[in-house]
Amino acid sequence: MIIRVGIVGATGYAGEELINILLRHPQVRITSLSAKIGKPQDICAVFPRLQGRISLNCQEPDIRDIIKKCDTVFLALPHTVSMGIVPSLLKGGRRVIDLSADYRLRDRRIYEKFYHVKQKDKTNLTQAVYGLPEIYRLKIKKANLIANPGCYPTAAILALAPLAGLGLADTDRIIVDAKSGVTGAGRRASVDSFFAEINEDFKAYKVDAHQHIPEINQELSKLAGEKVKVTFVPHLLPLNRGIIETIYVQKNKNGKFKAPNLISLYRNFYKNEPFVRIRPLGYYPSIKDVAGTNFCDIGIKEGPGSVIIISAIDNLLKGAAGQAVQNMNIMYKFPEQTALL
Amino acid sequence: MIIRVGIVGATGYAGEELINILLRHPQVRITSLSAKIGKPQDICAVFPRLQGRISLNCQEPDIRDIIKKCDTVFLALPHTVSMGIVPSLLKGGRRVIDLSADYRLRDRRIYEKFYHVKQKDKTNLTQAVYGLPEIYRLKIKKANLIANPGCYPTAAILALAPLAGLGLADTDRIIVDAKSGVTGAGRRASVDSFFAEINEDFKAYKVDAHQHIPEINQELSKLAGEKVKVTFVPHLLPLNRGIIETIYVQKNKNGKFKAPNLISLYRNFYKNEPFVRIRPLGYYPSIKDVAGTNFCDIGIKEGPGSVIIISAIDNLLKGAAGQAVQNMNIMYKFPEQTALL
Amino acid sequence: MIIRVGIVGATGYAGEELINILLRHPQVRITSLSAKIGKPQDICAVFPRLQGRISLNCQEPDIRDIIKKCDTVFLALPHTVSMGIVPSLLKGGRRVIDLSADYRLRDRRIYEKFYHVKQKDKTNLTQAVYGLPEIYRLKIKKANLIANPGCYPTAAILALAPLAGLGLADTDRIIVDAKSGVTGAGRRASVDSFFAEINEDFKAYKVDAHQHIPEINQELSKLAGEKVKVTFVPHLLPLNRGIIETIYVQKNKNGKFKAPNLISLYRNFYKNEPFVRIRPLGYYPSIKDVAGTNFCDIGIKEGPGSVIIISAIDNLLKGAAGQAVQNMNIMYKFPEQTALL
Amino acid sequence: MIIRVGIVGATGYAGEELINILLRHPQVRITSLSAKIGKPQDICAVFPRLQGRISLNCQEPDIRDIIKKCDTVFLALPHTVSMGIVPSLLKGGRRVIDLSADYRLRDRRIYEKFYHVKQKDKTNLTQAVYGLPEIYRLKIKKANLIANPGCYPTAAILALAPLAGLGLADTDRIIVDAKSGVTGAGRRASVDSFFAEINEDFKAYKVDAHQHIPEINQELSKLAGEKVKVTFVPHLLPLNRGIIETIYVQKNKNGKFKAPNLISLYRNFYKNEPFVRIRPLGYYPSIKDVAGTNFCDIGIKEGPGSVIIISAIDNLLKGAAGQAVQNMNIMYKFPEQTALL
Repeated sequence: MIIRVGIVGATGYAGEELINILLRHPQVRITSLSAKIGKPQDICAVFPRLQGRISLNCQEPDIRDIIKKCDTVFLALPHTVSMGIVPSLLKGGRRVIDLSADYRLRDRRIYEKFYHVKQKDKTNLTQAVYGLPEIYRLKIKKANLIANPGCYPTAAILALAPLAGLGLADTDRIIVDAKSGVTGAGRRASVDSFFAEINEDFKAYKVDAHQHIPEINQELSKLAGEKVKVTFVPHLLPLNRGIIETIYVQKNKNGKFKAPNLISLYRNFYKNEPFVRIRPLGYYPSIKDVAGTNFCDIGIKEGPGSVIIISAIDNLLKGAAGQAVQNMNIMYKFPEQTALL
Repeated sequence: MIIRVGIVGATGYAGEELINILLRHPQVRITSLSAKIGKPQDICAVFPRLQGRISLNCQEPDIRDIIKKCDTVFLALPHTVSMGIVPSLLKGGRRVIDLSADYRLRDRRIYEKFYHVKQKDKTNLTQAVYGLPEIYRLKIKKANLIANPGCYPTAAILALAPLAGLGLADTDRIIVDAKSGVTGAGRRASVDSFFAEINEDFKAYKVDAHQHIPEINQELSKLAGEKVKVTFVPHLLPLNRGIIETIYVQKNKNGKFKAPNLISLYRNFYKNEPFVRIRPLGYYPSIKDVAGTNFCDIGIKEGPGSVIIISAIDNLLKGAAGQAVQNMNIMYKFPEQTALL
Repeated sequence: MIIRVGIVGATGYAGEELINILLRHPQVRITSLSAKIGKPQDICAVFPRLQGRISLNCQEPDIRDIIKKCDTVFLALPHTVSMGIVPSLLKGGRRVIDLSADYRLRDRRIYEKFYHVKQKDKTNLTQAVYGLPEIYRLKIKKANLIANPGCYPTAAILALAPLAGLGLADTDRIIVDAKSGVTGAGRRASVDSFFAEINEDFKAYKVDAHQHIPEINQELSKLAGEKVKVTFVPHLLPLNRGIIETIYVQKNKNGKFKAPNLISLYRNFYKNEPFVRIRPLGYYPSIKDVAGTNFCDIGIKEGPGSVIIISAIDNLLKGAAGQAVQNMNIMYKFPEQTALL
Repeated sequence: MIIRVGIVGATGYAGEELINILLRHPQVRITSLSAKIGKPQDICAVFPRLQGRISLNCQEPDIRDIIKKCDTVFLALPHTVSMGIVPSLLKGGRRVIDLSADYRLRDRRIYEKFYHVKQKDKTNLTQAVYGLPEIYRLKIKKANLIANPGCYPTAAILALAPLAGLGLADTDRIIVDAKSGVTGAGRRASVDSFFAEINEDFKAYKVDAHQHIPEINQELSKLAGEKVKVTFVPHLLPLNRGIIETIYVQKNKNGKFKAPNLISLYRNFYKNEPFVRIRPLGYYPSIKDVAGTNFCDIGIKEGPGSVIIISAIDNLLKGAAGQAVQNMNIMYKFPEQTALL
């Protein structure tokens, strides 16, 4: 089976990664590329590195044309834009993998608070499946609308899920100190993102106020069965791609924390997962271990009253395009690693 | 003597450098900072690193106010903007050091060809002195308007002046392969200058078509007493500051090239210059030798029929703000190195 | 008064910075440069960027020669090497500013545990003054031996001193997530420090096991009047210089935490300090605000039960050579900012 | 058909790339990994990013074991080491793709002059095929020993072959100004290659004296049918991977240069080549167009008397491991692009 795939938002960083991955996928044909591009343009004029691998025009999104040409559509769009397109695509019978935040937050008031606009597609919000395969694989198989997770939440939730599910952690004392390469912010021009402003610099931003906080809290709370509220400080690294999150957990004092060895616990939790790797005792992941891959690598240091967890992903792959294709593979029952190794 | 100094265009990279240098200058007081800034703002809000060293508002340029408050004015403005301000400042009796290209090219047709706008201040153009101290020190002393040289031309002219003046080089076979850090392009937002577009990348731009070509040709032709026409290809380095130019010269076949040792010839040519350093035989300058300094370092390799010259400067210092202060020091008979070591 | 100054370990990063700063100091003459260099070599052959600013040979350290030529000696040496030289220098009547860790830790067992060698100079250890001017200025004035603080401890102690002194913080719940540029590790060749291993990478190292931990704990415990034990995870940034520490503090539940405004409290605490700057509410320091300066910049976000403090320094300046010269200025009653702005 | 492949020198940069490519190759099984490693070690302990993709010990090279386990052997070894191994491997009936320089230069005196050691395997030197598929594809098919080209020569020869073959260029006036990322120098620890020495720096090295010069001259002379002698200055870029060569050619004055359009001429020359891409008029390749790919991209600017050619490759792929696999694909009649897109 060959499925026909479209990408809306093909000219951004996640769009470029999607094209790159899907061109290697033996069961996929890219049939539609669109973006806010004005005049149609050969995608190889936008990304000269693709020359010789694809020949397709990228044009302004035309929903009817996309529905006609595609079985599944990836939306690599800015937040708040996706929800203007999703209803038509679903109504047209297409499956949608949305890389934006529009369908991630169950509580529309929280969405509005953090994204400063109303979530106006209530109907489909309730149908959307949060596309983190390690937690929701069964639901993903049957989903028509995937809310592909944010990059920071992917690293944080995978790092904390084994603990959260077992009630081992003090749920209001979780600190996530996150560091991301610059492509996490998308391809937007501003003086702040000018090379000379970021190169040789490093800084915190949106200190404990980032829009990914409610997404992390929502998912960890579900797993923990109680309200989780992380402290989250993101920082901007002077490099292109990759996230490291250094996570500090206080152990729960209720005596439930009896795991003799957290590394074993984590390895067991993820034993069937193709894209989560637990590092051995004393080793911690670095960005270069995961950059260019769909892996999430996790290292753990356990102390008497606390735990330090270090989680690493490529923000454009496991944190965006790679995870989106992993979701597609699950939806279509392709081997989950196809095109991702 | 304390002179009162103003900077127009204080919020750009060259402006920031000027403030930084002038704050260390014992004979200067910065009395006016202006830029296209909208609402007046403490300059330390723009550049937090200056906090504790200066307390002055930056505001929209008001020429009468500048004339009232300043003895000398630095213009760190985009090309074509300076010439709208210079006439008033000169008429007001102020000395002006213009870091833009507006008064560098003697031939207004060439200016128009490369900058796509008319040079409309013919009067002052003829009075302007090209502010390369190693060549024009005597004229600079008496100048009221300095056309501060471009960054690429500074490195190229200093590298070639000793040869050009002696008729040693084949003047239509000079190749300048130039590489510059990104601050050379100024602080302008565009997707092209986004961190992730430049980081881990390197490329040529404006191949043999850069606006600094006529400036180099004009000055070398004057020195050579004949028409010089360089081939010039600039490239963009993924680093903040610094220029390396690798220059390939064919020796003149007319037999005039009899210098037994070019390094000696260069050392002699620049023997009284505080900011030109000739490297020993077999050594070549790197960017880190000159970054953060006002020096131009030059290395030379002589072959039987040709010469390779490598020239290095900091584009924001010897290529802009540092040279501008050097010119000011000369104009006011301050020791030439003041605030520049 | 002109003092004669020597630098032992002149060829490392801190040594280079010391030379650079001291060349700008009007009351200092550098009279001796030494290092493990084998054959004596002009220091400008080691650092071509210094050419034209200094002319002095660097040679193997000869203590008697150093005592003869210098009033004060800076030791920019690896840990465990300094204590082999300090006794002779002090006996020779010289004042010593030691940038290594050898005289920082009061408890020799802890030194041995973290540096894997015995602290063998017990006598002078008790005389040494920990050279953090903001805390120990009075003692520094009269000191003959300064233990110049480590880079990470400088940023951490300055960030926490105002809280620690007032008993506001839960002293066993302090998390310091630190990020440093690579010069913090000194100029040592290893495959780990090869450009391509660090560029585009980021990682934690010595997770909660770094040798700066006991130094931070020692000083904070003194200030708090009770045992402080921080959790400390350092990370390696792909940039040359600068440290950011993001610090998470639980408020003390004993009700003593009644400061209406931590920013005011910090500003008051540091109101006479020339090199500590507290950022306004909602602003946090970035590395570029302090790189190349001797400042420590601090930003604060206060929540109901916790506080986030972000502290930034240049590891080679306020974290090493700059602070060393600040200490020298205090010892000789020079204006404290001399050569440091 | 599945071929069994071994890599000697598996722990260097080219070795890592070879593993990475060959793991994606459907007709290859990696059966032996060796290197100067001392104690055998899981290759995933050396390269954690490979975890989950391969499970194989890397050990000290044992030629008999390699011959037993492999059909083809890649040698990713330092120059002068390969020729100690090649004879045994060939005698054992194995095909060898040598990424070192040992079998590239026909003239052993030139090898000795540039590599400071004798080429001691005269017999196999005459059998070796220079593995540049665009020129020697037919010979590669039947070769048992491939001398895989150097990175700089690959970019230079592909950029000049269409001209050289037609006698269009002035063969003693070719200037190659080359810029390479740091992995070109291999994974060797030295203070020169320390991160802080290269980051924010750029410099020329081995000015017109690099060991790749005779390799370029040898191949271009063959193509031109006359002696070609390029001027070649390599520079070190502060980035991990990629080469740009900016090449300046004087046109031959003998009137033979009559190509109405060089871009057409180049497109025609390479029309069947899967890995050479000629950019359209006015466009030039940048490193990011080719990094991570096996492509060589070429841009051309033609003037009345001269031509500027800009050539870009990934030094680890088309300049090393990618080209090596391309050669293997040709030798085994696999589709040439297998595992390389």
